[in-house]
Amino acid sequence: MIDVNEAISRLDWSKEPQGLYAPIAYALSSGGKRLRMQLVLSGCRVVGGNEAEALPFAQAIEVFHNFTLLHDDVMDKADVRRGKPTVHVKWNDNTAILSGDQMLIEAYRLLEQVPAARLPQLLHLFSQTATEVCEGQQYDVDFEQRDDVQISEYIEMIRLKTSVLLAAALKGGGIIGGADDKEKEALYNYGIHLGLAFQIQDDLLDCFGDPQTFGKAIGGDISCNKKTYLMLSALKNADPAQREQIAGWLAQTTPSQQKIDAMKGLYVATNAREAAEQAIREHTRKALECLQALPDNSEKQRLEAMALSLVNRKS
Amino acid sequence: MIDVNEAISRLDWSKEPQGLYAPIAYALSSGGKRLRMQLVLSGCRVVGGNEAEALPFAQAIEVFHNFTLLHDDVMDKADVRRGKPTVHVKWNDNTAILSGDQMLIEAYRLLEQVPAARLPQLLHLFSQTATEVCEGQQYDVDFEQRDDVQISEYIEMIRLKTSVLLAAALKGGGIIGGADDKEKEALYNYGIHLGLAFQIQDDLLDCFGDPQTFGKAIGGDISCNKKTYLMLSALKNADPAQREQIAGWLAQTTPSQQKIDAMKGLYVATNAREAAEQAIREHTRKALECLQALPDNSEKQRLEAMALSLVNRKS
Repeated sequence: MIDVNEAISRLDWSKEPQGLYAPIAYALSSGGKRLRMQLVLSGCRVVGGNEAEALPFAQAIEVFHNFTLLHDDVMDKADVRRGKPTVHVKWNDNTAILSGDQMLIEAYRLLEQVPAARLPQLLHLFSQTATEVCEGQQYDVDFEQRDDVQISEYIEMIRLKTSVLLAAALKGGGIIGGADDKEKEALYNYGIHLGLAFQIQDDLLDCFGDPQTFGKAIGGDISCNKKTYLMLSALKNADPAQREQIAGWLAQTTPSQQKIDAMKGLYVATNAREAAEQAIREHTRKALECLQALPDNSEKQRLEAMALSLVNRKS
Repeated sequence: MIDVNEAISRLDWSKEPQGLYAPIAYALSSGGKRLRMQLVLSGCRVVGGNEAEALPFAQAIEVFHNFTLLHDDVMDKADVRRGKPTVHVKWNDNTAILSGDQMLIEAYRLLEQVPAARLPQLLHLFSQTATEVCEGQQYDVDFEQRDDVQISEYIEMIRLKTSVLLAAALKGGGIIGGADDKEKEALYNYGIHLGLAFQIQDDLLDCFGDPQTFGKAIGGDISCNKKTYLMLSALKNADPAQREQIAGWLAQTTPSQQKIDAMKGLYVATNAREAAEQAIREHTRKALECLQALPDNSEKQRLEAMALSLVNRKS
């Protein structure tokens, strides 16, 4: 099987001007799981395709994902990503903007290498997905200013911001591997539910994860009053007294362990934690259900294992 | 002939989330000459093509160009564009970054509508050009930190930052119109020289233009010590006494009419103004020469007139 990290490191950023390309090399060097790239190759293999043909699309998806992280970090003023200073900290905001723009263009340049007969379909899938990711990011920003966000809106936001890229990765791999329409749809929907389960699990871990294994401080979302699945569920389920307590903590904008502990208690008391765990199980079940439309083989077993491992992940 | 402003206004930005799309509508509404769009259509017509087929590529090029303006304005902290507040002023930096990203994606989405047989060629031309524009922008940034920039490097920078997009517009239109290789090359090179003449003329007008017709204050480049064709020529041609005077004015970072007048005097005394005028004439001549490879028709006459009017433009 293709070594995804090696395939990313093979992209050449040693060209001039280095002011443009060195930040791209840096942003792509920090590893991570390369999950989206794996999903492209997996989507290709599961329908019996040759994964080597899917590699440029996998690289394009991975470069695009890292472009979104780069620009998101500027917008969020995030200083650290995967244990290293972010590009706008190591260089500056303007560099992060321009090198990010070039990364998006580089993602499209990689698309030129997909099998020619599939280009129109893959270009459409890629641009449609990129659009949805930007829309999801905008909804996320919009939600910060609203206090009436519904859980269904939150699900739609994370579907756009997170799920569609996983879904497009799988479907794109499937297209290159020769999937039929039913298989393409199954791969796409598997990715959607996997992404939703993944993101809600993220919300849970940020709050109830083990600080030893989670890798970052617990309670970050609570400290910044982030409207997570847990928060929205708590607000929906709370009785008047609980609602008042939540409002009181939201008004306390200075981070404190006291606030984190109190909100965690409220998430349990309002059954928000239980609701989140239930939602993860439900989306995992749906993801597994989608896999039924795919051929039985070892790659499908890997996709099953991936969905199941997600429910139990600690970081 | 297609009404380019109408064709841009036909793009629909009324979709949700408006936080993402309203800034795009705003950025595209301010008009301007739509020069690049005109060049796509012109490149198509001059080789006998049907301009309607070239429209999506023309829209893609125009949306891309306005994307670069949007992000450049954030990076340059420019407050006004075509007499209106820039997007990052009317909204904020994050909006300008994200809506700009989406504009770049929208440009690629428009490419999906080009004639299918030409898609691979046009996608390659577009991405190659977009890359070069980003490289040109990076060189422009790099030059601010250097005091040994050569005129040849400056020409290469403006070729990348300005000319290649005009060239790609013309060539892309030609490709859609069925141009042969010789015609494609002629259109591209015409665009390169047109762009170089255009940019050097810009440098001249910023310094020696008529404030009545130029539309903005004269001497802006001098005030911010911008390394223009005039500045680099003056530094190259200056005798030791003149070089010392220039260095003195460069050290005066507070803008003043005195500095503007003195530098204008030095541009004349060092023959920098003459050198710039000479360069404009030379690139105009080369642009006209390229047109010889194209069929004789009224569209070619329009392209000739465009190159000639450029030498005499006042704004």
